[in-house]
Amino acid sequence: MSAEQKLRELGLTLPSGSAPAANYANAARSGNLLFIAGKAPLPENGKMPKGKLGREYTTADGYRFARSAALDLIAVARTELGSLDRVARIVEVQGILNATDYFEEHPQVLNGCSDLLVEIFGERGIHARSVLGANSLRGGVPLVIKATLEILPD
Amino acid sequence: MSAEQKLRELGLTLPSGSAPAANYANAARSGNLLFIAGKAPLPENGKMPKGKLGREYTTADGYRFARSAALDLIAVARTELGSLDRVARIVEVQGILNATDYFEEHPQVLNGCSDLLVEIFGERGIHARSVLGANSLRGGVPLVIKATLEILPD
Amino acid sequence: MSAEQKLRELGLTLPSGSAPAANYANAARSGNLLFIAGKAPLPENGKMPKGKLGREYTTADGYRFARSAALDLIAVARTELGSLDRVARIVEVQGILNATDYFEEHPQVLNGCSDLLVEIFGERGIHARSVLGANSLRGGVPLVIKATLEILPD
Repeated sequence: MSAEQKLRELGLTLPSGSAPAANYANAARSGNLLFIAGKAPLPENGKMPKGKLGREYTTADGYRFARSAALDLIAVARTELGSLDRVARIVEVQGILNATDYFEEHPQVLNGCSDLLVEIFGERGIHARSVLGANSLRGGVPLVIKATLEILPD
Repeated sequence: MSAEQKLRELGLTLPSGSAPAANYANAARSGNLLFIAGKAPLPENGKMPKGKLGREYTTADGYRFARSAALDLIAVARTELGSLDRVARIVEVQGILNATDYFEEHPQVLNGCSDLLVEIFGERGIHARSVLGANSLRGGVPLVIKATLEILPD
Repeated sequence: MSAEQKLRELGLTLPSGSAPAANYANAARSGNLLFIAGKAPLPENGKMPKGKLGREYTTADGYRFARSAALDLIAVARTELGSLDRVARIVEVQGILNATDYFEEHPQVLNGCSDLLVEIFGERGIHARSVLGANSLRGGVPLVIKATLEILPD
């Protein structure tokens, strides 16, 4: 099943893709690699989430936020490529969590992103990844995720 | 206008490029990609800046530091390539800010780097980027920026 | 001398390669690039190291941990490629250190990784790198290192 079909089957609606706030792009392509800018979770009830994992937010909240940020990454990919079926592979993901000094459940949080990528892209969604705890992020968002994709030759 | 012409027009002088301090290189090339090591701001008045954004330094200081680190990244690129006109595209930038737990203005700081890249490289300078708050950096420097460039085929 | 020969000469035994804990892979290949997931130090005396550089651990401990994580990265590369002699170049390394707010010796710690890569791969082991202090990491490990390698064409 193609990624676009899978997306419909899952009943997922992609956001419009958050805009870059300054002199940079949502994505930059080099050869068959597409580098996507770091993305925060989408707004909930019209407000950007703000707070730290391990303090304002639980690991389960983090999982939901990571899934949300992944939706934004995917939305950017579709905008750039026209169709998600042009994605050959999700190559690399880096999760950056706004977390307390004592937070330890980084993998469980980033799974929210990884699980969605595999749901949508299947084998092509399995990526190398890394995750870390930052002590601060832009606007106090609870996480930012960046990704590198391989795209099918034109 | 070429990047080298633009640099002259802006009256910018590139530093000599800071040397790697250990068993690594300022840059490593793979195919058409050039990966540049993380660079701190250049010394000011002969001293390396030291301190945190949100405590010793303001967001305006951070903007200046990000511009300074970008100059060092560009200096490395020129040393590696011979001429900046061999840069096809700035592909990806990651800014790592030494910041307090409550700092939120990461994008405004990293703009110091992004703005300079676009001033010099124009459309080719527009990159994907991510930025995060680290609680410590080498020698206490206020930020480190790394970059990946695409270079024109030989 | 080939990397595999060098490994034998150094008397180093590669670990079996730690398994990914979730919906992701130890490594993902795109063209000639191999992206390896973030790796922590191997267990010591059957236990995963846990603690911060600058508090539970010294810089010398960190050097040892970075060398240990590098062994795991190399083990993953060999599992993926069959032989380390297929590595054309270590392109990029990022070290993420679980450190106190006042830690400053990040380069000395990451040297444990860089030195081992150069011991084993010689000129091919010299990479671009960046290093930062995270305020928390998964399971409280003292560091995580990720790497990107170029591999020889098939």
